[in-house]
Amino acid sequence: MLNMIKLKEECGVFGAYSLNTNIQKHIYYGLQALQHRGQESAGIAIVQGSYVNYVKGMGLITDVFTKENLSALEGKVGIGHVRYSTTGNNEARNAQPFVANFHNGYMALAHNGNLINALELRQELENEGRILQTTSDSEIILHLIAKYYSKGLIEALKITIGKIKGSYALAILIEGKLIGIRDVNGIRPLCIGKKDDTYYIASESCGLDVIGAELIRDVEAGEIVIIDDEGLRSVKIETNEKKMPCIFEYIYFARPDSILDGKNVYKVRYEMGRHLAKESPVNADLVVPVPDSGIPASRGYSFESGIPVGEGLIKNKYIGRTFICPEQTDREIGVRIKLNVLKELVKGKKIILIDDSIVRGTTMKRLVELLKEGGAKEVHVRISSPPVKYSCYFGIDTPTKKELVGATMSVEEIKDLIGADSLSFLSIEGLKESVGLNTACTGCFDGKYPMEVLGGRSKYLFEKK
Amino acid sequence: MLNMIKLKEECGVFGAYSLNTNIQKHIYYGLQALQHRGQESAGIAIVQGSYVNYVKGMGLITDVFTKENLSALEGKVGIGHVRYSTTGNNEARNAQPFVANFHNGYMALAHNGNLINALELRQELENEGRILQTTSDSEIILHLIAKYYSKGLIEALKITIGKIKGSYALAILIEGKLIGIRDVNGIRPLCIGKKDDTYYIASESCGLDVIGAELIRDVEAGEIVIIDDEGLRSVKIETNEKKMPCIFEYIYFARPDSILDGKNVYKVRYEMGRHLAKESPVNADLVVPVPDSGIPASRGYSFESGIPVGEGLIKNKYIGRTFICPEQTDREIGVRIKLNVLKELVKGKKIILIDDSIVRGTTMKRLVELLKEGGAKEVHVRISSPPVKYSCYFGIDTPTKKELVGATMSVEEIKDLIGADSLSFLSIEGLKESVGLNTACTGCFDGKYPMEVLGGRSKYLFEKK
Amino acid sequence: MLNMIKLKEECGVFGAYSLNTNIQKHIYYGLQALQHRGQESAGIAIVQGSYVNYVKGMGLITDVFTKENLSALEGKVGIGHVRYSTTGNNEARNAQPFVANFHNGYMALAHNGNLINALELRQELENEGRILQTTSDSEIILHLIAKYYSKGLIEALKITIGKIKGSYALAILIEGKLIGIRDVNGIRPLCIGKKDDTYYIASESCGLDVIGAELIRDVEAGEIVIIDDEGLRSVKIETNEKKMPCIFEYIYFARPDSILDGKNVYKVRYEMGRHLAKESPVNADLVVPVPDSGIPASRGYSFESGIPVGEGLIKNKYIGRTFICPEQTDREIGVRIKLNVLKELVKGKKIILIDDSIVRGTTMKRLVELLKEGGAKEVHVRISSPPVKYSCYFGIDTPTKKELVGATMSVEEIKDLIGADSLSFLSIEGLKESVGLNTACTGCFDGKYPMEVLGGRSKYLFEKK
Amino acid sequence: MLNMIKLKEECGVFGAYSLNTNIQKHIYYGLQALQHRGQESAGIAIVQGSYVNYVKGMGLITDVFTKENLSALEGKVGIGHVRYSTTGNNEARNAQPFVANFHNGYMALAHNGNLINALELRQELENEGRILQTTSDSEIILHLIAKYYSKGLIEALKITIGKIKGSYALAILIEGKLIGIRDVNGIRPLCIGKKDDTYYIASESCGLDVIGAELIRDVEAGEIVIIDDEGLRSVKIETNEKKMPCIFEYIYFARPDSILDGKNVYKVRYEMGRHLAKESPVNADLVVPVPDSGIPASRGYSFESGIPVGEGLIKNKYIGRTFICPEQTDREIGVRIKLNVLKELVKGKKIILIDDSIVRGTTMKRLVELLKEGGAKEVHVRISSPPVKYSCYFGIDTPTKKELVGATMSVEEIKDLIGADSLSFLSIEGLKESVGLNTACTGCFDGKYPMEVLGGRSKYLFEKK
Repeated sequence: MLNMIKLKEECGVFGAYSLNTNIQKHIYYGLQALQHRGQESAGIAIVQGSYVNYVKGMGLITDVFTKENLSALEGKVGIGHVRYSTTGNNEARNAQPFVANFHNGYMALAHNGNLINALELRQELENEGRILQTTSDSEIILHLIAKYYSKGLIEALKITIGKIKGSYALAILIEGKLIGIRDVNGIRPLCIGKKDDTYYIASESCGLDVIGAELIRDVEAGEIVIIDDEGLRSVKIETNEKKMPCIFEYIYFARPDSILDGKNVYKVRYEMGRHLAKESPVNADLVVPVPDSGIPASRGYSFESGIPVGEGLIKNKYIGRTFICPEQTDREIGVRIKLNVLKELVKGKKIILIDDSIVRGTTMKRLVELLKEGGAKEVHVRISSPPVKYSCYFGIDTPTKKELVGATMSVEEIKDLIGADSLSFLSIEGLKESVGLNTACTGCFDGKYPMEVLGGRSKYLFEKK
Repeated sequence: MLNMIKLKEECGVFGAYSLNTNIQKHIYYGLQALQHRGQESAGIAIVQGSYVNYVKGMGLITDVFTKENLSALEGKVGIGHVRYSTTGNNEARNAQPFVANFHNGYMALAHNGNLINALELRQELENEGRILQTTSDSEIILHLIAKYYSKGLIEALKITIGKIKGSYALAILIEGKLIGIRDVNGIRPLCIGKKDDTYYIASESCGLDVIGAELIRDVEAGEIVIIDDEGLRSVKIETNEKKMPCIFEYIYFARPDSILDGKNVYKVRYEMGRHLAKESPVNADLVVPVPDSGIPASRGYSFESGIPVGEGLIKNKYIGRTFICPEQTDREIGVRIKLNVLKELVKGKKIILIDDSIVRGTTMKRLVELLKEGGAKEVHVRISSPPVKYSCYFGIDTPTKKELVGATMSVEEIKDLIGADSLSFLSIEGLKESVGLNTACTGCFDGKYPMEVLGGRSKYLFEKK
Repeated sequence: MLNMIKLKEECGVFGAYSLNTNIQKHIYYGLQALQHRGQESAGIAIVQGSYVNYVKGMGLITDVFTKENLSALEGKVGIGHVRYSTTGNNEARNAQPFVANFHNGYMALAHNGNLINALELRQELENEGRILQTTSDSEIILHLIAKYYSKGLIEALKITIGKIKGSYALAILIEGKLIGIRDVNGIRPLCIGKKDDTYYIASESCGLDVIGAELIRDVEAGEIVIIDDEGLRSVKIETNEKKMPCIFEYIYFARPDSILDGKNVYKVRYEMGRHLAKESPVNADLVVPVPDSGIPASRGYSFESGIPVGEGLIKNKYIGRTFICPEQTDREIGVRIKLNVLKELVKGKKIILIDDSIVRGTTMKRLVELLKEGGAKEVHVRISSPPVKYSCYFGIDTPTKKELVGATMSVEEIKDLIGADSLSFLSIEGLKESVGLNTACTGCFDGKYPMEVLGGRSKYLFEKK
Repeated sequence: MLNMIKLKEECGVFGAYSLNTNIQKHIYYGLQALQHRGQESAGIAIVQGSYVNYVKGMGLITDVFTKENLSALEGKVGIGHVRYSTTGNNEARNAQPFVANFHNGYMALAHNGNLINALELRQELENEGRILQTTSDSEIILHLIAKYYSKGLIEALKITIGKIKGSYALAILIEGKLIGIRDVNGIRPLCIGKKDDTYYIASESCGLDVIGAELIRDVEAGEIVIIDDEGLRSVKIETNEKKMPCIFEYIYFARPDSILDGKNVYKVRYEMGRHLAKESPVNADLVVPVPDSGIPASRGYSFESGIPVGEGLIKNKYIGRTFICPEQTDREIGVRIKLNVLKELVKGKKIILIDDSIVRGTTMKRLVELLKEGGAKEVHVRISSPPVKYSCYFGIDTPTKKELVGATMSVEEIKDLIGADSLSFLSIEGLKESVGLNTACTGCFDGKYPMEVLGGRSKYLFEKK
């Protein structure tokens, strides 16, 4: 899936606790590795004696952090956050980590996920005369912890977890400790790493690899992990909830080199390609991946089908997020700026074009045109996930239903829209087998969410504007 | 007093409530006129339906506001703030107005002044599990209003006023109303203006002049002014406190064209010059003001003494706040960059050099040198205020005592330090007569404050770092 | 005259030659002192071994130079320039000093003035297959020196001076020498200073004062000054031309503390005020200068008339060049943002309002209104120069004739336009007496220029677009 | 080859001539597609009536051009340039196209290549009293054309070509015409395209694809192509020189989707992989390309050897050119930030690691380490080009000889340096067969250049500092 039209993921979190090592640069590098989880704001908060120092800002890690401000963040315990922000024109104030003063000193919090009862909780807090600074659901968690803190830290965290509903992977600084929490369904990923005298928590294991830390294990669904000078302790919330990790992490969001809940993402995508080849074979000459999103599945498809892979679409490496077509009417040139057809390779061939998903269908339509202009005889589109039919309430910024071709059109209609000679999606069954988890949240495909969500509500209704 | 070494004032506030007119530009222009009260951050908050929109940033009004962001602030009710911030490396978060969500919707607050019991109040709030975002005393006022809001707005304001001690001129947006409050001693100035269907409140009347509004009256000490669709209402706090406006506003802070508590500032300064001439006459040829701070007093001195005024020191108009000597060792060139001696005028003459105050003495020393290099036969320094001997706890950022020459040296010693042929300060008595108020806060000269302050505490102790 | 509507001066030049001292910061400070001569671009060029290093950019000195780029300019011989650029949308390439490579190495040139035969010279150069990079007349001087350089440096300079017509004060770096040249009429000012082992040349003596250098003398009309390791040499061009310095430098452009051709500018302006009082007395209570341009003349007027001066108009010190009214329709608020009336002073009084010139009359109209709104009983405007009736071809950017009220209206009509109770200008005779020079260029008042200019041509015709 | 340590290419040029279409955006998009040829400055020059308007600046196309400045460049004839600049601290002035005024009006020039007799030509020009603005060899070409222009345009171009030695692909605007020139050896590429009423010239055909233009043919070695209202004319220089295109374009510089002198670059690289597999087979489990540079050759190697390709190294897409390790000591983390090993894929396997070249060897050393840390049993490095042993004098910025491992070490020593289990380079013979051209410049591999270069001279000696 090209950058132009994509599902946006919400956030990445990272934390580090060291006995003797300054870890601000570890967090910086860790966030670099998690940059794909959010590119609109970034922040790092570090414990410095009795308070928390922080730097936050809009943009990429490299936009926000400089040699100077990083060196001012020196410390041994800290957290970081990358965010894709969705809430309007004053995004800067919603950048995380959130840092607050309360009666035991400071608290800082980084959150990946989405609360579905944020509005109710906000009203409860405000009725008590409390002041909220932002429209973010994440700030509510801070207030709840502060409110119940007089009962003790662990008890306050437990009460908070009891009150908030939705998805959350949290990294928290409080009392000089680093705390990691994953929601009772384990919807968003969170894992633990270790290197020498330092513990890490990270949304994905690729954040550990970059600094040479070892992946210890995932934080469990409903687990509170507390890291301090005595090491790592775990508190488990008692609950009947089933673990249901978001399956879309495997399809699109997570980096291929990450291992989430024990499964390597590249491997899962390769398996998706293999299942896709079994479910929807086609007589063709060449498997062409949409770069870079279609590459792992194209390998699996090629292995299973025996049809070779070829780079029929070449990327312009220098077209980054800053590219803007000077005029609206130039939009159609957009795909050509980013990709060119390798005519030598595709001319006269029957092509299997592989991507991980279709959202609006407009980009795929242009890619099919491009390949045909380049001389392809046939273009068969194979998508390594099922059609996205439902909104996500747990942290993924899906378009509205009427923009989702999967929700409004049959596969046949989508095929006609994109001008392909044939089109197949991976089945939900094939997807689950590829991932190999017992249970997972497949709500965006089948509407079966880990908890009840109020039907008519759009995601934005959960936040007070 | 040159820009280089000066007493810093804290803030200016401005508010507007109109029935039918968009007032965001009135606030912009009003803040322009109040820019001398704070140059480090600025902000405007405007009521837009059921929420408050705002723009805040570091720097001058012209740095923070653009045509674009001003037009996004369209509305009929709003407040603004200019600030000189004193609290450390994350100043941006302390920019005002503070805007918060609480259970009745939004609240926004702009504050000029300083609370002396901020630390105690902060602890009280945090003990209740409340979260404070900043280290600013102004945020505490927001929390108190929210905490007591369930008792009704007026009652909440009264309780809040009963709890906070110190100086405060406040402009508040709440329930769609504009509220102005001045502390029970009336330490910081605040006045009311009107033009057509719009009411204004402003730290100084020059903020009304710029938009062509008429000065109605000052907000009284201990008065709450509520402006809404039914017009202007006044609630008076019952108190035994005496009105004691800050006398330093007249000496240095306020703009000469402002009228504070019925007294025109230029006129007061002119009178200071007259009293100074009577108290400390000297046989000389020319009265030379330090531009621009010494000008009004130099006129009064000249009138009383019959000695003509001449521009012996010429300013470089293009040296603004951005000027930085490329190297530390170039500091001595600093004064020469900003001022040049008009040798034609001063050569061979006995000069009376007039300024409004002496803080560290270093600039005055260089000015005396400059005049002597320029050929002045004698340089007699006359200061139109008494020596500053005590710290201010009510909103003025005085240097520490050991930096204040007035606190550590006799007049004779200061005279030697600056190399003048003679030196006199205005007496406290002469100052009071020049101002013409029955009572005023003269704490920085005589240590007599409007309320008890804890002796050893520096101003910074009142804030939690 | 307020900043808003003004005559614009073209440039300031500065040069330094030292045996043993690094002078890049002297040039920096010297240009600071000359900043009033041009605010749109600035540059410094320094000899470093066998080449010239330079930094140029748009904006004020403080915009263009940083600690870093200044320290990269370390050297003992250099020149600098501040410019008000008039030539279209690519101003950056016209910033000076111009630096070029030619067969003897480098050459750098800074120019204040305007050539009136630029078009003819440009055609001559281009016909020889030479390439010009800019549309600036100054570049032509570089090419002529390079073209004739094979005849020897002095000869090449003499031939160049023989070919170029118009006004020019030049600072040139070539062969490791610093060269200063003033046109044969001495229209633009240029002076020589010395301090320790360093010689300086500067457009005005205030540039010498700031670095503590002594004013030695002016460069003479038609003089070439060559400064190198052997000291200062002078070559005089033989000519019948009379020295005719621009009289407008004394009226408006030069800083009051400068001494041009032996005359102190403040003193000259004071004399203008005296002559004005003699020529156009009026029965009034108060002399009010337009800040800051009317101040020196107001003193002379007051001295001669015995009527006291008072600051009836107060400036907002924080409104700088960056101020932009957010919308066109806010223009009328412009004057009020910059100036406020001191009502206490002007109420009920007959005012004499003094300024140095009137260009379009719009600002003066608003000032008269402002004073009357402030309660002034009468406002009598007195201008310390004659009406500007003719364009300048020698370096001053006058508006077109139809925008000049002096060229299109009688004094009576201007009086009605600005709403004054009376209006007088200084006579040309009074002006000349105030300045005290035998001859001067008064072309903008009487059309008598130092050389023939082609009547119908606007100044822009002399440059190839 | 990773971005970190690479051979730098010099420039890309693009031109457009249309009868009726505004082509500024075509040039913008064309330069986007050529962005890989230079990322340090960019510029576009457009004919507008009797002059040339242009925008140039440092950085990527997207840094330099905005909607606003592009729309100011409206026109039907123009050229553009992307540059990797090599000449010191004032790069902005060396940005191209160069634009100049000469006696027939304007001229603009964009140059890819390097002149080896620049110093001699510069001296000749300067001896004639001409002024050069830059240290660029490209400016010399402008001066020569201007100098000989009086003999007529075509004659002037022929004389210029006769005098300049080295490599050059030129796009020139003069007399309203678009002119393309390729040096007599055809060292740098240049091709011609057409779409509707518009002709294009471009360094690579990928610049034509992006705007939907058709590749007509390459400009021939020693050919002048003149495009004007009468269409396309060709003038051929008579010469005995052989066509010798730079072979490194095929190995590394050109985009894989381009066709240069009739050869598709991806195809050539695929063939290099095949030849490499034949020349240097190895018993292994997996072919791993260094992304993205090793991908095409890895496919050819896999096809020939039957060993599957796998993405063993995963790129962080968000690490762009702005990434800077906060401290020198963090350099070693650099590779890990950009690439991560896919352990699932490489664990326990014998790996063939493919890249297109080795320059210093430091990056390759880290990649081998990374793969071994990730569990690879063996790592066999295969490079799809011969070792680089000689400097390039014709437009490629090779490191100095002592930094080139190929020039200073044997293959065995390099193998030990990088820690590989085996290492092979493609033979020069294999390279030539893969490309399939009769003659080509292979100077960087065997020191055989298309013309004599003065032995000891470094490339920088050809430019006057």
